[in-house]
Amino acid sequence: MNENQTTLPHVVIVGAGFGGLRAARALAKAPVRITLLDRNNYHLFQPLLYQVATAGLSPDEIAQPVRAILRSQRNLEFRLAEVRGADLAARRLDTDQGSLEYDYLILAAGGVTNTFGMQDVARHAFGLKSLEDAVAIRNHLLRLFEQAAQENAPARRKALLTFVVAGGGPTGVECAGAISELAQVVLHKDLPGLAIQRPQIILLEAAQRLLPAMPERSGEFTVQALAEKGVDVRFGTAVAGYDGRVVRLKDGETLATHTLVWAAGVEAAPLITALGLQSGSLGRVHVLPTLQVPEHPEVYLIGDAAHLEGEDGRPLPMVAPVAMQQGDHAARNLLRAAEGLAQQPFRYRDPGIMATIGRNRAVAKLGPVELRGWFAWLAWVVVHIFQLIGFRNRMMVLLDWAWNYLVYDRAVRVIGPERRARTKEYAS
Amino acid sequence: MNENQTTLPHVVIVGAGFGGLRAARALAKAPVRITLLDRNNYHLFQPLLYQVATAGLSPDEIAQPVRAILRSQRNLEFRLAEVRGADLAARRLDTDQGSLEYDYLILAAGGVTNTFGMQDVARHAFGLKSLEDAVAIRNHLLRLFEQAAQENAPARRKALLTFVVAGGGPTGVECAGAISELAQVVLHKDLPGLAIQRPQIILLEAAQRLLPAMPERSGEFTVQALAEKGVDVRFGTAVAGYDGRVVRLKDGETLATHTLVWAAGVEAAPLITALGLQSGSLGRVHVLPTLQVPEHPEVYLIGDAAHLEGEDGRPLPMVAPVAMQQGDHAARNLLRAAEGLAQQPFRYRDPGIMATIGRNRAVAKLGPVELRGWFAWLAWVVVHIFQLIGFRNRMMVLLDWAWNYLVYDRAVRVIGPERRARTKEYAS
Repeated sequence: MNENQTTLPHVVIVGAGFGGLRAARALAKAPVRITLLDRNNYHLFQPLLYQVATAGLSPDEIAQPVRAILRSQRNLEFRLAEVRGADLAARRLDTDQGSLEYDYLILAAGGVTNTFGMQDVARHAFGLKSLEDAVAIRNHLLRLFEQAAQENAPARRKALLTFVVAGGGPTGVECAGAISELAQVVLHKDLPGLAIQRPQIILLEAAQRLLPAMPERSGEFTVQALAEKGVDVRFGTAVAGYDGRVVRLKDGETLATHTLVWAAGVEAAPLITALGLQSGSLGRVHVLPTLQVPEHPEVYLIGDAAHLEGEDGRPLPMVAPVAMQQGDHAARNLLRAAEGLAQQPFRYRDPGIMATIGRNRAVAKLGPVELRGWFAWLAWVVVHIFQLIGFRNRMMVLLDWAWNYLVYDRAVRVIGPERRARTKEYAS
Repeated sequence: MNENQTTLPHVVIVGAGFGGLRAARALAKAPVRITLLDRNNYHLFQPLLYQVATAGLSPDEIAQPVRAILRSQRNLEFRLAEVRGADLAARRLDTDQGSLEYDYLILAAGGVTNTFGMQDVARHAFGLKSLEDAVAIRNHLLRLFEQAAQENAPARRKALLTFVVAGGGPTGVECAGAISELAQVVLHKDLPGLAIQRPQIILLEAAQRLLPAMPERSGEFTVQALAEKGVDVRFGTAVAGYDGRVVRLKDGETLATHTLVWAAGVEAAPLITALGLQSGSLGRVHVLPTLQVPEHPEVYLIGDAAHLEGEDGRPLPMVAPVAMQQGDHAARNLLRAAEGLAQQPFRYRDPGIMATIGRNRAVAKLGPVELRGWFAWLAWVVVHIFQLIGFRNRMMVLLDWAWNYLVYDRAVRVIGPERRARTKEYAS
C-alpha cells in the first residue's frame, strides 16, 4: 500500500452478493481504496441454488471466487472475514480477523431464511439461501430415495417419498417443479422397482395464488404447469409446525413427510440487526431514499436488508435486481459525498421477473411483455446463462443443462461431502 | 423379485470400488441374484482425488452414482448400506439397514489411510482416500492462502504457506506437484501481493528414492521434475509426529506447517479386521491363491484388503489394476464353484504404472515401454479419461483440464460445503 493510496478515502463493502459486487465494480475507477469483506471466498448465484438442491448442477458451477471476479480491479482488496459487529460512531468494523476502520461503509449483507419464530421449523426444515443449504437438500433427497428403495412398509415409504415445499414465490415454485423432475428421473432411471410408488410433491401457499409479483394469468398458468408435473398445489394453507416427521398446518391438518423446504420467508441478515440500527419488519433497516442510514450519512445500506418504499408505496422486494441497482446507486452517492455534492434519491426500475417450472415451462414478465411456456423457458435459460459470472461456469452450466435436457437425467446425483468425514482439528 | 429369481444363488458384493464393480459386471449374465452394498451411492475414481484436493476438478466429476453405472444390469440390486459385521458361519452380513443372507460373498472393502499408530498424525494430518478427504484438503488449502494474505508476521505467514506431503509413491508425488501448481496459480492470479512469499512444498520419503515401483531413472526424472516445480524432496526422512502446527521428524528436525498430507500408508478397511479373519501386515487377510478366504470357500476377498503374494514372492500392491483383475477372477471362480468345477489360482498381469507431476510432466511404465515427460503426460491424460466412468464426467473432466491447462487456472477454487452449515436433524 503506497503513500498515495493511503491518503485516499477508505471504502469498506460488507458482502460479495449481487449488491456488494456491483458497488465494488462501480467504484473500480474511483479515487478510493476499497476493502471487500465476505465470509465466503465466492460470489453465489442464488437464483440457481434450487438446481444444486435437486442435483441438476454442481455447487461450484454457481459459485465464483470473488478474487477471480475482481482480479483486475487495482483499488480493491478482498478479505475472507466475518463481521462480528461495528462501532458506527467511531467508523470501525469488528471482524473475526481483527477490526477495520473506514471512511465510507456499504452494507450489503443480504438476507437469511425467516421461519417467523417457529423454532422447530428452523431446526428441521431446509432453507434455500446458501450453498450449504442446497447441498444438504440434495444429499437428503437422494438419501430418502435410497431409504425408500429398502423400505417395505407402505406408510413409511409414502412419508419418505412425500416432499413438502412451503412458499408460492419463485423459489418455492421452481423448487417444487425441480423436485418433481428429480423424482421422475431417479424413480424411472435408478429405482424402477419403486416406480409403483408415486412420489408426492406438495406446494403450500398461504395466500390464494402463486407468484404474486406476476400477472394473475401467469399464476394460473403456473398452477396448471405444476399440476402437470404432479405437484399438488394447496392455497390458503400455512405451516404451524414441523418436527422432522410431520408437518402441522394451521387448519389442523397434518402431512407425514421427512422433507420440508422452507421458501416462505426471508429476513435481513442478523448482522444488520446486530449493528443496533432501527429496523422495521423482517429486520430490514429503514434507509433514507439516498440509501444512507439515518444519523450515519457515511453508511450506505443496500439489498435485502434495506427497507425502502417504491413508487407504489410498498417496500421494495428482496430480489437481485433491487440489490444490484442499489449497489450502483450507493457507489454514485458515495462519490458525490466525497466531492461534497448533494445526495440523490434511489429509484427502482423493475426489469421484470421470471420463474421456471422445469422442462419447457416458465413464466416471465419483462416490462410490458408477458411470456408463458416454452418461449418464456428459453428466455429464462438465456437470461440466467448471461447473468452467471465466469466463462467456465457458463460453459459447465450450459453443458449440464443440455445433458439433463437431452438425456432426461440429473447430472449430479452424488451424495457428496457435506460435513467433515471425521473430526479433524484445523489450522483455520 | 419373482419366484424364478429367488431360487437363484444370492451373491452379495461389499464395496462398489474398482474390485466390487468389476465383479458385479462380470456376473451380469450369470444365473445369480446380486446385491451390491456400499456406504456411498457413488463409485469413486480414486486416482484423481488429488486433483479435487487441489481445486483442479469438481468432486462430482470423479464420483459416478452406482445406480447409473449398473442401471442396465437386471440381476443386480444396489443398497446404500454400511456393513457392521458378519456371521460367516451362518452366511449372514449385519448392516445398518438390517441383516442380509448370502450364498456367496465377495468382499471388496478396499483400504484406508494408515498412520501406523500415530494418533496425533491421524487427528491432524489429511488422508487422501475419500471424497470428504479431498474436499477437506481443498477448502483447507484455499483458507490458508486467504489467511496468509492477512498475516503480517513473516514466521506465521511462512508456516501458513508451508505444505508437507508424506510419502513418495504416486499419490504423494502427484499431490506435491499439484499443490505446487495450485500455489503458483493462486499466488500469481489471486494474491499477487503475496507473490514475494515463495510457498514451500516439502515431500518426505523415508526411503532413498521416489516411485519404488518404477524404474530407477523414472524416479530420478521425477525428483528433477518436482524440483523444477519448487518441491523440496527429502529422502530418508520419516514423520515422528504432528500436532497441527509442527511436524516432528524421526531425526529430530521440525517443520512448522499447518498442512500435512499423509500419503505414506494404506491398510485394509477396518471392516475386514472386524470380521475376525486372520490378517497379516497392514490388516490384509491372507487369502488362498483362488482368492477364497481360508475355512470359508464361499467368501472371496479381493483388492487392497487381500494379502496374496505375486510371482516375485512379494505381496501384490494395493492398486486399482490388482483389484479389477481380482474382481473378474473372483466372479469366474464363484461361477465355477456354483457349477461344481475346480477353483483356479489368480495370476496378476501388471499393466504398468504411471504418475503425473503436473503440467506436461509424467512418468509411465507400460510393460517394456518406459515414457517420461510430455508423452508420458499425454498418455496419462488419455488413460485416465478413458478409465473414468460416465460420459458426462469424461466430458466435464476434459473441459476442466483444458481450462486449467490453457488458462493456467484452477477451475474449482471455491471453499465449498464440507460440513453441515448449521445443526439440522435429519430423517436419515
